[in-house]
Amino acid sequence: MASSSSLTLSQAILSRSTTHPHGSSNPPPPSDHRLSLPTFSLPTFSGLKSSSLPTTTASGRRLTSRRRRAIRASAAVETLDKTETALVDKSVNTIRFLAIDAVEKANSGHPGLPMGCAPMGHILYDEIMRYNPKNPCWFNRDRFVLSAGHGCMLQYALLHLAGYDSVQEEDLKGFRQWGSKTPGHPENFETPGVEVTTGPLGQGIANAVGLALAERHLAARFNKPDSEIVDHYTYVILGDGCQMEGIANEACSLAGHWGLGKLIAFYDDNHISIDGDTEIAFTECVDTRFEGLGWHVIWVKNGNTGYDEIRAAIKEAKTVTDKPTLIKVTTTIGFGSPNKANSYSVHGSALGAKEVDATRKNLGWPYEPFHVPEDVKKHWSRHVPEGAALEAEWNAKFAEYEKKYKEEAAELKSIISGELPAGWEKALPTYTLESPADATRNLSQQCLNALAKVLPGFLGGSADLASSNMTLLKMFGDFQKNTPEERNLRFGVREHGMGAICNGIDHHTPGLIPYCATFFVFTDYMRAAIRISALSEAGVIYVMTHDSIGLGEDGPTHQPIEHLASFRAMPNVLMLRPADGNETAGAYKVAVLNRKRPSILALSRQKLPHLPGTSVEGVEKGGYTVSDNSSGNKPDVILMGTGSELEIASKAADELRKEGKAVRVVSFISWELFDEQSDAYKESVLPAAVTARVSIEAGSTFGWAKHIGSKGKAIGIDRFGASAPAGKIYKEFGITAEAVIAAAKSLC
Amino acid sequence: MASSSSLTLSQAILSRSTTHPHGSSNPPPPSDHRLSLPTFSLPTFSGLKSSSLPTTTASGRRLTSRRRRAIRASAAVETLDKTETALVDKSVNTIRFLAIDAVEKANSGHPGLPMGCAPMGHILYDEIMRYNPKNPCWFNRDRFVLSAGHGCMLQYALLHLAGYDSVQEEDLKGFRQWGSKTPGHPENFETPGVEVTTGPLGQGIANAVGLALAERHLAARFNKPDSEIVDHYTYVILGDGCQMEGIANEACSLAGHWGLGKLIAFYDDNHISIDGDTEIAFTECVDTRFEGLGWHVIWVKNGNTGYDEIRAAIKEAKTVTDKPTLIKVTTTIGFGSPNKANSYSVHGSALGAKEVDATRKNLGWPYEPFHVPEDVKKHWSRHVPEGAALEAEWNAKFAEYEKKYKEEAAELKSIISGELPAGWEKALPTYTLESPADATRNLSQQCLNALAKVLPGFLGGSADLASSNMTLLKMFGDFQKNTPEERNLRFGVREHGMGAICNGIDHHTPGLIPYCATFFVFTDYMRAAIRISALSEAGVIYVMTHDSIGLGEDGPTHQPIEHLASFRAMPNVLMLRPADGNETAGAYKVAVLNRKRPSILALSRQKLPHLPGTSVEGVEKGGYTVSDNSSGNKPDVILMGTGSELEIASKAADELRKEGKAVRVVSFISWELFDEQSDAYKESVLPAAVTARVSIEAGSTFGWAKHIGSKGKAIGIDRFGASAPAGKIYKEFGITAEAVIAAAKSLC
Repeated sequence: MASSSSLTLSQAILSRSTTHPHGSSNPPPPSDHRLSLPTFSLPTFSGLKSSSLPTTTASGRRLTSRRRRAIRASAAVETLDKTETALVDKSVNTIRFLAIDAVEKANSGHPGLPMGCAPMGHILYDEIMRYNPKNPCWFNRDRFVLSAGHGCMLQYALLHLAGYDSVQEEDLKGFRQWGSKTPGHPENFETPGVEVTTGPLGQGIANAVGLALAERHLAARFNKPDSEIVDHYTYVILGDGCQMEGIANEACSLAGHWGLGKLIAFYDDNHISIDGDTEIAFTECVDTRFEGLGWHVIWVKNGNTGYDEIRAAIKEAKTVTDKPTLIKVTTTIGFGSPNKANSYSVHGSALGAKEVDATRKNLGWPYEPFHVPEDVKKHWSRHVPEGAALEAEWNAKFAEYEKKYKEEAAELKSIISGELPAGWEKALPTYTLESPADATRNLSQQCLNALAKVLPGFLGGSADLASSNMTLLKMFGDFQKNTPEERNLRFGVREHGMGAICNGIDHHTPGLIPYCATFFVFTDYMRAAIRISALSEAGVIYVMTHDSIGLGEDGPTHQPIEHLASFRAMPNVLMLRPADGNETAGAYKVAVLNRKRPSILALSRQKLPHLPGTSVEGVEKGGYTVSDNSSGNKPDVILMGTGSELEIASKAADELRKEGKAVRVVSFISWELFDEQSDAYKESVLPAAVTARVSIEAGSTFGWAKHIGSKGKAIGIDRFGASAPAGKIYKEFGITAEAVIAAAKSLC
Repeated sequence: MASSSSLTLSQAILSRSTTHPHGSSNPPPPSDHRLSLPTFSLPTFSGLKSSSLPTTTASGRRLTSRRRRAIRASAAVETLDKTETALVDKSVNTIRFLAIDAVEKANSGHPGLPMGCAPMGHILYDEIMRYNPKNPCWFNRDRFVLSAGHGCMLQYALLHLAGYDSVQEEDLKGFRQWGSKTPGHPENFETPGVEVTTGPLGQGIANAVGLALAERHLAARFNKPDSEIVDHYTYVILGDGCQMEGIANEACSLAGHWGLGKLIAFYDDNHISIDGDTEIAFTECVDTRFEGLGWHVIWVKNGNTGYDEIRAAIKEAKTVTDKPTLIKVTTTIGFGSPNKANSYSVHGSALGAKEVDATRKNLGWPYEPFHVPEDVKKHWSRHVPEGAALEAEWNAKFAEYEKKYKEEAAELKSIISGELPAGWEKALPTYTLESPADATRNLSQQCLNALAKVLPGFLGGSADLASSNMTLLKMFGDFQKNTPEERNLRFGVREHGMGAICNGIDHHTPGLIPYCATFFVFTDYMRAAIRISALSEAGVIYVMTHDSIGLGEDGPTHQPIEHLASFRAMPNVLMLRPADGNETAGAYKVAVLNRKRPSILALSRQKLPHLPGTSVEGVEKGGYTVSDNSSGNKPDVILMGTGSELEIASKAADELRKEGKAVRVVSFISWELFDEQSDAYKESVLPAAVTARVSIEAGSTFGWAKHIGSKGKAIGIDRFGASAPAGKIYKEFGITAEAVIAAAKSLC
């Protein structure tokens, strides 16, 4: 008998890549010692340190048995016997009623999608996907994204049946209630087993493109001819709503371009959205569009009961390795509800007691609410031991890999764990006053390239502005269909898709650190994705150049005004606007360290001098004194600036000091970081007694009142920009040292 | 000889719908008295009051001549003689060099697109489009949108040649300079002749869908079997960048769904974007995608010199009346530049003196910079008289129409002029304290339906949330392919496209007042379009419901937090958050009156009582006292709130007054309107001496420091929301009267 570790990887994959048989009389015995559950250790690197590898004998027995079944399943995939089909029906109806019952109890939610998509959900989680319910963070798991996030009861029901600890019966009963693990839309930070936060339509499919990209990239970098150590699929369910959103088209165009063959998307084609039949607003031919986007397209005509059609489609999808696949599954929304199926009324409201009863009768469901029949429970119970075995198998494989490929294994390990290499921050460049003046976008490129050398999971790119955003990693080539091991991502002019793809990359594995770039003003195109970064705790780094009227001639459509304020108002975002080289390096240090919140770096197009007093340590405080000729924490006036205007504040200070004033200059690079400092620190920078305060920033003054107080003056721009050379606009708009001096003099 | 007014409309259309001959020896004599120019009267209803209608004789002569030429052109469109082709070449090169020279002088800009697209630009403005250079606002003009706005020198050159006053030679020389009429991207508010502001990619094609929708709608409402009084085309040039943007796909999917046959889009297929060959990020098959979207697709393989191919494509496009047409025109970016053509280096930078010289040699262009050869000038000179004649012709037609269809003519006139019907605001509902409590989204629906009855240009809809946003106009049906006269727009789940389409509708005609709707949080999806509303002075009404955690169970992905602040920071936007019925009516009054800035109404999902003290007049001030038991403008404390929290502030005030406090409650429905009030008024509401101030708003506290001052307290939500019933979240987050009372007591 072969030990699991001597099994080749391809054999091991074979044993999983075919569908599981249903109702097998031969599940792995739960008493088997190999199946002791790994500790649930989110989010550390799971399993690598585990000592519970399968024993030779036990493992051999199990694998033999599983391989035998696999072959049977493979041969008989379309000829399941009646008993098996009946059990699948029962399992599918269990999913439907868990959704119906939870929505009914909450009197809020979306029962229609789970009722229609239960068959594909069942097949995915019960027959197709490789996962370990007791360790939702197992690195090599298949990823599932419910892009149609409103249908989250589908996913909660599946996680519950599969044995995830995160969704117990009481959690289902607490659907949409305060503090529950089952919020109204899937939240990755609430519910282990949920990969990404969805709900805002179109985001999920774009996240999935990021997840599939991450797999493809890591596979290309780390797989060896004798060991495919990275090897999983990404599955998605998206609906008509997602299909209408532009972000979905952007991301799917890229997925086709990149040839992400292991991305398999189920399009729940139910012809109903909130406003009624899609006939009123959505009559395009989705199949044709996806063919244009370079996808393989399959149509499952009966998604309600056509289990074998669904299975065959997945099988076919897996044979197409150079294109992502869209499986259009025609379903009936609210399937089973005699009076509400196929109508918008079942989309987003509880069925109501009467219709729930009618549906129970119609589908022959005699059980109490939230009941999972014993045979269904038993059927699903194998996923806990099998999942543990899968992970153990992979751990064993990794152990082998590590022996042969020490360096690669160490690098992959650090990506999986997310532990930053010791001393990584020393790679960041430092600058002196003598360093040549430069645009912070250029200084940013130095940082990006420095970080790429020391952070193995660092990758990213721009939305067709690489040469303007200065974001190319010089040591790497482009991530493309045939060079997926490279790290420069070329997003094209697709800002929204770019942001959401980066969220997917970030959530794939803790050590992947994606950055993405465009002009700062075009954060407007991707704001919904940035908000999901913030909400879902994705530490994406947003490299946003051309951060003010300083970009000049392109004019008001390209000049950000309100953008700094708009992100300062957004929770869990670090908005950073560095003034020079050391502040840019500091901003990157902060961005890399903050793995649970996105950072937005606003960077200049125009050259800026390196200023005395700026520092990485200062940046980490968010606001700090860069120069001061006062004593006793009692300056006559405090001047504050950010980014390119810190230079102006400093110049104004020089002039005022010549006239005998005691002037403090404060760099306010990140309001969020400053807010987190102690009151004592804040008082040391902005003493309450000093009310003569002037701020200068080439953007909206909105929000500055907080720092300048009732008596201070904010110099900024509360109108749209203009098309002219930058210097001219600064002067015309009064963003000048003279203006600062005049304001300061009026106050002290 | 027939008088122009006795010509049937279809004959008149025929005389223009075929291409003009070039270099005709028979242009209308410039001395012809009919051709006296109408006064340039932007933005009033042009021409209707004009007395310079064509005389019978003169008109007959001209029309006969034009019809003869039209027939010749129609027969000979692909067999122009050499002289004519040579002149077209020369005109096309004039366009190229005006762009080259202007970019060179500015040392900034995008020469590549104008050089490649000059042929289609020439054909459109010289041969195809119907317009009056001296009245860019003539109602029935063909609309042109340069969606690839960076190539604006193409449009400036064309406007210059066509005789628009807005682009004189000195304007070309002032390209991208302070105060010029030729900013770095096309701005409708700077340059008469530019229909919409473009530059941010994808916006223009979506605007064009709105322009075409407006034409289709007005045509359906006002055309008569004997008089097609509304009848124009909408032309667009979009590039690879626009094609990649999700918003373009959203808008084009709708254009296909609506069957907008008079929308003709030229796709400048030059295979180059800023990052280089589109091969690196954009390999989808655009043709196939557009076929999927329901468009007619034509491919012009030689867009550089294939004039007849371009002409034939336009001819074909016009025969397809039930689908929009995409003409893919394969061009060479920077055509004519021997060393830079077909490369990204010509996309966004001046060619440089050396390459300009080389291009002059290569294209055989011996002229000085900015020179327009005499024969080219002469050739184009006919557009001024012809344009005037076209408008005069239409005015005559309208006079006939008015005689027969008095009521319709009056309605159309008011739409064209944008004059609101006298007393329209009296249609808005009023409420008393006894009116039943209701969600402001429902009160909003009452306002929308009231306005639709009195405002003939009022139309709009929701992004698949009509039944949640409460935006259906009950007296109208859906605008659809076969019912374009109706006014409920069904946008599907396409927020970004929706916003930009509404910008297009707004800019079509002054009296069209579009509204659009989604959940407030999803303004993130359409923020770039809202910003263009603000910048381009489009008075779109954004009906944004579910405006806080008050939406409850849908959770943090659906709960706006930072959105109020983010729009308060945006220039030229009215952010309105009404608290009850009268404030909702007031918000609509303000929104309708503000035709040059967009209004965003944040509306509640939850029921709210009608409050004492609220009023339409108060709303117009932005912030006002709704209740006060103090005297001498010296309250002990000022409580401020907006929307659903004004009720909480009022309750807290009641409690505090019971305890003997002098409390003022201020409704802060619109910060922008309050900012516009006099200092005296502001002091009367927020006396500087009263520093005890408490604000409450179920959103970010960001920005409130301005109103509460250094000593005040802001009660709000500086984190993401949660999934639970609304009441529970309010309590858990401390958005309560108790919190207001405690804060007030700590201050006074």
